[in-house]
Amino acid sequence: MVWYVDQDKLENVAIGAGILGTGGGGNPYYGKLHVKRLLDEGARVAVVEPDAVPDDALVVSVGAMGAPTVGIERISRGDESLVALRALEEHLGRRATHLIPGEIGGGNSTRPMAVGAMAGLPVIDGDGMGRAFPELQMDTFAIYGVSVTPAALADIYHNTVVFPHLADAVTLERYARAVTVQMGGAAGYAFPAMSGAEARRTAVPMTLTLAERIGATVRDARWAHRDPIAAVLAVAGGQVLFRGKVIDVVRRMAAGFARGSLTLDGLAADRGARMTVDFQNENLIAHRDGAVAAVVPDLICLVDAETAAPITTEVVRYGLRVAVLGIPAPAMLKTERALAVIGPAAFGYPDVPFTPLSGDYGGDMPAARPAATTA
Amino acid sequence: MVWYVDQDKLENVAIGAGILGTGGGGNPYYGKLHVKRLLDEGARVAVVEPDAVPDDALVVSVGAMGAPTVGIERISRGDESLVALRALEEHLGRRATHLIPGEIGGGNSTRPMAVGAMAGLPVIDGDGMGRAFPELQMDTFAIYGVSVTPAALADIYHNTVVFPHLADAVTLERYARAVTVQMGGAAGYAFPAMSGAEARRTAVPMTLTLAERIGATVRDARWAHRDPIAAVLAVAGGQVLFRGKVIDVVRRMAAGFARGSLTLDGLAADRGARMTVDFQNENLIAHRDGAVAAVVPDLICLVDAETAAPITTEVVRYGLRVAVLGIPAPAMLKTERALAVIGPAAFGYPDVPFTPLSGDYGGDMPAARPAATTA
Repeated sequence: MVWYVDQDKLENVAIGAGILGTGGGGNPYYGKLHVKRLLDEGARVAVVEPDAVPDDALVVSVGAMGAPTVGIERISRGDESLVALRALEEHLGRRATHLIPGEIGGGNSTRPMAVGAMAGLPVIDGDGMGRAFPELQMDTFAIYGVSVTPAALADIYHNTVVFPHLADAVTLERYARAVTVQMGGAAGYAFPAMSGAEARRTAVPMTLTLAERIGATVRDARWAHRDPIAAVLAVAGGQVLFRGKVIDVVRRMAAGFARGSLTLDGLAADRGARMTVDFQNENLIAHRDGAVAAVVPDLICLVDAETAAPITTEVVRYGLRVAVLGIPAPAMLKTERALAVIGPAAFGYPDVPFTPLSGDYGGDMPAARPAATTA
Repeated sequence: MVWYVDQDKLENVAIGAGILGTGGGGNPYYGKLHVKRLLDEGARVAVVEPDAVPDDALVVSVGAMGAPTVGIERISRGDESLVALRALEEHLGRRATHLIPGEIGGGNSTRPMAVGAMAGLPVIDGDGMGRAFPELQMDTFAIYGVSVTPAALADIYHNTVVFPHLADAVTLERYARAVTVQMGGAAGYAFPAMSGAEARRTAVPMTLTLAERIGATVRDARWAHRDPIAAVLAVAGGQVLFRGKVIDVVRRMAAGFARGSLTLDGLAADRGARMTVDFQNENLIAHRDGAVAAVVPDLICLVDAETAAPITTEVVRYGLRVAVLGIPAPAMLKTERALAVIGPAAFGYPDVPFTPLSGDYGGDMPAARPAATTA
């Protein structure tokens, strides 16, 4: 099945990916504007389901890395990821045939569409996280055995860096993060490169469709004066963890990440209670009155209490009325192999067990396909 | 003219390069041991004068970057620079025909010999500094217009990084330094790649011969009970700035460099006076009782007061009796174009004018060829 990105679907994806980004993935509004302009100029971007990708396709994940707080202050040039892709292709001596988002969250859901529009390539309906995560080793490509190198980065001046061979994804994270900091805190990336067979085996499937459907149902609900938050949960799966007002935000740049925490005072049924949410680009753990309410890899998503508009790490601020949603992670993120990389301990919470939220990621969507645990 | 590296000449180069390194360039003893072993195993390394290099040669500078203080604690694997060279060659699609030291100072004088032994390539008699400097933009290749990219780095695990295109040498310094820090503070490098014509135009010529002659005269003087320090100055040019005892060393790792200063109490004719020397890997400025005695790009070299053995930044310590030598920089480092990159202001001394030491670098050596100021 193929669908084409149009202005309406783009709007939907931006909302859905903003929510699935769990606070990160880059600002979804800027990402949307870029694709919008390309569509206005006549670009056509196909989204193809993973099962339609040939085994011998050359699939490359493209997007932006860095701190979301940098991304909204220094707007990207727009072609950083394309320049990175070209550097990677030159190294490989071969052109990519398909693109795929590294993460469905935030701006990195739409950035492959922009590159696809510029390079004339289709985008695969899926991604490497089913959400967003802050570090490069945290995608299902790496977790399920795709080599992270060769990899390429490019900055706004078209300075390029290629990593021909690195020991593992954690090394790429360290080396590429250090370069990204020198690039001003934001860079376009192109990696990993993989075969169509590898992409099908390791990607979280159908997540562009999921994001699009979440956005569509939110907009429908707003239009029909139904509850948009209930609409999100019906499509995405999950529950409302808390409703409240943001009373404090601590946010700092540290080692190339936006780190910090926010505190919410309860409203409505949660009056008298308090929730804190820690984040590293993305929301990591939510405590309600000191007890863990949800933790990575489950999705902790802030949305506007009335409109369900996603509220990302770089724009959350004092006074906002929000709902904190808890959406169960895709099954592929909850295997033992995955939890070693993206469980609570990997984020500095060694004493917090991963107690999964009930329900299924994507509700009735085909997205929650059994994990590739035999990889 | 061609000469071949043997154990005797290697010993001489290690001494001479240790002195010309002005405190840095990597530990010359370790660099010597590596080449010594390769020679023991039968390797043969030719040193060719620049004028014998064909215009269309592919010349690559190889060496180690990082802090000397790291280099003596974590001994290099030995083939990092070779792995970087191979990554660069693969990127270029072409094999190097000649190697050249990026700096004649310290271990980076002998590292190209080691790579030459392993790769079967000759080493050009010259380098990019005529001494050692801490940063990548500070070589005559970059100063006189050779493109710094493509460039390659490799670490002890054979992780490789290629920079296909960067805006300038300062950008390479920033990006490569950040990666080097992640590599543990030391890396093998291969850059720039240049034609034989470019190498002849931009290199400081005949500095391996100069280093070898300095070492030879020091050893001869020791053997004959003549003053080895006078012997150094007769060959290298320059003067004794100070004789004294090291009474304090402040040394710290900062942003991938060994930074600090040392304080000397005068002995003999300098009794009652005090000298301080600031360094960033290499010695930058010497003050005698508060007045500037010598400053970059002129060479400030610490040697043992009796034997003239070079004393590098990473091993200098309390109690050593030393002579501080001031050797005039090569003419190529004293042009307006060069001073903008390696003058006092470039090292954080904007108010210190460059007042050159009297005399000529290399004395009667052909090394002090007129600078390529028209490049």
